[in-house]
Amino acid sequence: MYRSHNCGELRTSNESENVTLAGWVHKVRDKGFMVWVDLRDRYGITQLIFDEERSSKTLIDQAQKLGREFVIQVEGKVIERASKNPNIPTGDIEILVAKLVVLNEALLPPFTIEDKTDGGEELRMKYRYLDIRRNPVKESLIFRHRVTQEVRNYLTNEGFIDVETPYLIKSTPEGARDFVVPSRMNEGQFYALPQSPQTFKQLLMIGGIDKYFQIVKCFRDEDLRADRQPEFTQIDCEMSFVEQEDVLNAFEGLTRHLLKEINGVEVSSFPRMTFDEAIKKYGNDKPDIRFGMVFGELNAVTQHKDFNVFNSAELVVGIAVPGANSFTRKEIDKLIDWVKRPQIGALGMVYCRCNDDGSYKSSVDKFYDQDDFSKWAEITGAQTGDLICVLSGDASKVRGQLSALRMELAEQLGLRKPDEFAPLWVVDFPLLEWDEETERYHAMHHPFTSPKPDQIALLDTDPGAVKANAYDLVLNGNEIGGGSIRIHDKETQALMFDHLGFTKEEAKDQFGFLMNAFEFGAPPHGGIAFGLDRLVAILGGQETIRDFIAFPKNNSGRDVMIDAPSPIDEEQLAELSLKLNLKS
Amino acid sequence: MYRSHNCGELRTSNESENVTLAGWVHKVRDKGFMVWVDLRDRYGITQLIFDEERSSKTLIDQAQKLGREFVIQVEGKVIERASKNPNIPTGDIEILVAKLVVLNEALLPPFTIEDKTDGGEELRMKYRYLDIRRNPVKESLIFRHRVTQEVRNYLTNEGFIDVETPYLIKSTPEGARDFVVPSRMNEGQFYALPQSPQTFKQLLMIGGIDKYFQIVKCFRDEDLRADRQPEFTQIDCEMSFVEQEDVLNAFEGLTRHLLKEINGVEVSSFPRMTFDEAIKKYGNDKPDIRFGMVFGELNAVTQHKDFNVFNSAELVVGIAVPGANSFTRKEIDKLIDWVKRPQIGALGMVYCRCNDDGSYKSSVDKFYDQDDFSKWAEITGAQTGDLICVLSGDASKVRGQLSALRMELAEQLGLRKPDEFAPLWVVDFPLLEWDEETERYHAMHHPFTSPKPDQIALLDTDPGAVKANAYDLVLNGNEIGGGSIRIHDKETQALMFDHLGFTKEEAKDQFGFLMNAFEFGAPPHGGIAFGLDRLVAILGGQETIRDFIAFPKNNSGRDVMIDAPSPIDEEQLAELSLKLNLKS
Repeated sequence: MYRSHNCGELRTSNESENVTLAGWVHKVRDKGFMVWVDLRDRYGITQLIFDEERSSKTLIDQAQKLGREFVIQVEGKVIERASKNPNIPTGDIEILVAKLVVLNEALLPPFTIEDKTDGGEELRMKYRYLDIRRNPVKESLIFRHRVTQEVRNYLTNEGFIDVETPYLIKSTPEGARDFVVPSRMNEGQFYALPQSPQTFKQLLMIGGIDKYFQIVKCFRDEDLRADRQPEFTQIDCEMSFVEQEDVLNAFEGLTRHLLKEINGVEVSSFPRMTFDEAIKKYGNDKPDIRFGMVFGELNAVTQHKDFNVFNSAELVVGIAVPGANSFTRKEIDKLIDWVKRPQIGALGMVYCRCNDDGSYKSSVDKFYDQDDFSKWAEITGAQTGDLICVLSGDASKVRGQLSALRMELAEQLGLRKPDEFAPLWVVDFPLLEWDEETERYHAMHHPFTSPKPDQIALLDTDPGAVKANAYDLVLNGNEIGGGSIRIHDKETQALMFDHLGFTKEEAKDQFGFLMNAFEFGAPPHGGIAFGLDRLVAILGGQETIRDFIAFPKNNSGRDVMIDAPSPIDEEQLAELSLKLNLKS
Repeated sequence: MYRSHNCGELRTSNESENVTLAGWVHKVRDKGFMVWVDLRDRYGITQLIFDEERSSKTLIDQAQKLGREFVIQVEGKVIERASKNPNIPTGDIEILVAKLVVLNEALLPPFTIEDKTDGGEELRMKYRYLDIRRNPVKESLIFRHRVTQEVRNYLTNEGFIDVETPYLIKSTPEGARDFVVPSRMNEGQFYALPQSPQTFKQLLMIGGIDKYFQIVKCFRDEDLRADRQPEFTQIDCEMSFVEQEDVLNAFEGLTRHLLKEINGVEVSSFPRMTFDEAIKKYGNDKPDIRFGMVFGELNAVTQHKDFNVFNSAELVVGIAVPGANSFTRKEIDKLIDWVKRPQIGALGMVYCRCNDDGSYKSSVDKFYDQDDFSKWAEITGAQTGDLICVLSGDASKVRGQLSALRMELAEQLGLRKPDEFAPLWVVDFPLLEWDEETERYHAMHHPFTSPKPDQIALLDTDPGAVKANAYDLVLNGNEIGGGSIRIHDKETQALMFDHLGFTKEEAKDQFGFLMNAFEFGAPPHGGIAFGLDRLVAILGGQETIRDFIAFPKNNSGRDVMIDAPSPIDEEQLAELSLKLNLKS
């Protein structure tokens, strides 16, 4: 072993012990007659001291030649520091070095190994191994491990079995695009990497493993948006002989456990809200309920007056922004500009100040009187001192716009507190959603989701109205998990494939094994999958997931550190019975 | 919830409780006036009873129509059984059923769902979801989960951090063949699936994560031998600031922990043996040391007599088979036939009986006298009652042959006890091995393994003689883990690539990122990887790994259940800028 202690553990109680430490040279302060070196490892920083009086000339020379990030090993004695540093746990002591060995030299790193580094995103990714030395990244990776351990131990204690499902599976065109893997031994054939272990976990249920979980990599070949990775990690779970309520309770338990063990937070309530209600009250299916600003629909009190913008709108809807009466005209104009940006797309915004004296002052005073405004206030829940913001237009668009505005205002007003947690189940999702491009219905969750049994008949008459036994777990405005009760009989599954536009042959070709399995005694079952990368980031109070992934890919799906993907040999291609067929 | 209890938990203490159970119909015994149903789930079997006196006619009718593997739900009362079954934990009670609901019917399964099934391997794989309902497979999967939990908890307590490394990485022609994944977004370029996270774990060490582990899928596109899978699971570990001894101690700790917690076995010793010694004493680098039959080299006492077979042999080597003097002539002839099979390839076998009266009787009595044989006995450690088996020929071939014979005899004599565990470290592996086919040296472990520092100079003069800081953990004659101290400086790594026949450009192209990383302060480090599938099988006392893998592939790399791999759409190929280039 190269060390007797790590760089985070020595205290005054170790005084006068002879110790051996190893680590990285974090900083050198050279006063000529005296040299201090901050030695760093995963556990912390310990100060080394070399001085004319107590150290040999050779040793001081050696110390003076150390560069940042050199890897060294030192032997020495723990002594009390003359001037203590209360900011680090080892700040009361230092090591009077007797021997120094350079284990490896280092080039000057391309960015500083500090909590706030001077390195940009791209440079940090190229030298990710240096980035990981920085506390924020290192701590994020350790945090992720803590979370996964808690998940595994909790679910194990609850009787769930961790089963590994295969990575080399079968390509199915439903859902997102698959990554495929050519098979050398089966000429002209391909495996696909799993978008999720969905069918395998259902087969495990049919196999009698009635509580399953797995923390598993999944793959989607999608055009990447910011914060999307081609490979990502799921906490994948499934249970047999359960109804929706049982699944919600089981994973409310897991979430409570994580919030308590990881964040020290006991959540008082775990509300449930239907999809329809979430859309109506928050304009989106993953509302952040840590703060109010619940939508108030104002059609009844704004239309049939002389204001044509509202009269012609399908929906007039407002929110009461707490305390925002104090916004200056300029600040409000900035908000109006913000909602009119193409990303949001509103045509304008009407506002109404709720003055301290109980009166109202609005941008549409010439169309409405104080009585009207008091109704606006009543419906939006506005109090004295608030600002009512109103948008209007096509219902589904305007809800999205107001939802975006609500989140922006919450951000500005500091209402999205990273250490406050408000989980929410959104239930009763629609089974299908219409896709404009392909002009057919798609499964909103996936094609194995069970419609509400009493609504199956509706599939023929009004497919878009059919609700599913599907649910999302929302935490602070982020979907952290989603699942459903599954179809477990061949007839309903066939009906579903039929409604999704599969021919009988396509369904059989792609999912025949599952349909067959349904014929051999499939139990009722359902489950959920959590997006681990996002879950960890949110529990860690962060918005972006990259620091919680050791080696993330960039927006073109590239690993810029190892420079992958990359061309392969002609020979390798030929072995796979493939030829390049470049477009350009 | 479909059930109040599972099928394994009810006891006489539950008598007269009303319960709801759900599960599979395991067996129906219909006496007309009385029907018993064995209801099965993951946890066990509970007997249901329906009878003329206490059950309605409708209910009995229902029960009589149940088929094997139907999924049902029943409500009823726990009663004491008239005739108890001491073989199952629920054998004292049964359920007098009041209500029966068929949740799903089932076709007759293609094989029986029993511990000893009538289904052959292929049928079981095609209907793996039914196979998993059988106790041996189900228990193996649960056993695997227990092992991985113990591994994770032990390593976590020891300060190791579980870090996920990427699956979409870079193809490198060194080692086995990669599975590749075409990138749609990076035309003409490919990711590779990892054969192991080797370079990433080394980068984590350079990143300061000084104790890493991961239970991770790895991929090798090799022609499959029996019991090899194209995707397999490793317990992958790495440590910084360690020497070989530290790694051995750390993972001796893990192995002791597993044997204790999983098997209830406290291993007394954990011996270490050099590679050379293992080859000399057992003819192979993964000796099963649960029993003796250590090789005795007999050249000195057999050559220069008149027996030309031995005189012309590079090596004459024997083992003392305990108590095998009692083998009949026929049994010995069978052994001789066995070593002459092409898979073993010996030309013959000489034997010598150690008679109860202290005399010897051999197949080469005309060339050797009793004095000679007593020396054979001394060297092989043969006792009265043993049989000495002697092979001769080319040293490396004959060692392999005798090793195979030793294992076969141990099997026959019942010396390979599945509940006895004898771990062994084999150390000081050669750094390189000569490959006849490519006529160059290959890395025996992998190209990142450190040569013994004092032997680096030998690389130029006698590369084959250089030993590495590489080690294997052997358990009961199986390699369950292997690792090494790694190279951590650019110069040695470049030297190594040079000796492996890489040009500077090839080394830079494929491993440039690692060589660069070595320049920014790489700590000394080393690690190990365990083959989880095999480890679990051995701890479970089994020879084959398939039952410990939920969805294994067959010897052609096919998943016969889902029928993968399979052809993909022209459109999908075109998107990936690929064309098929079939050989046939």
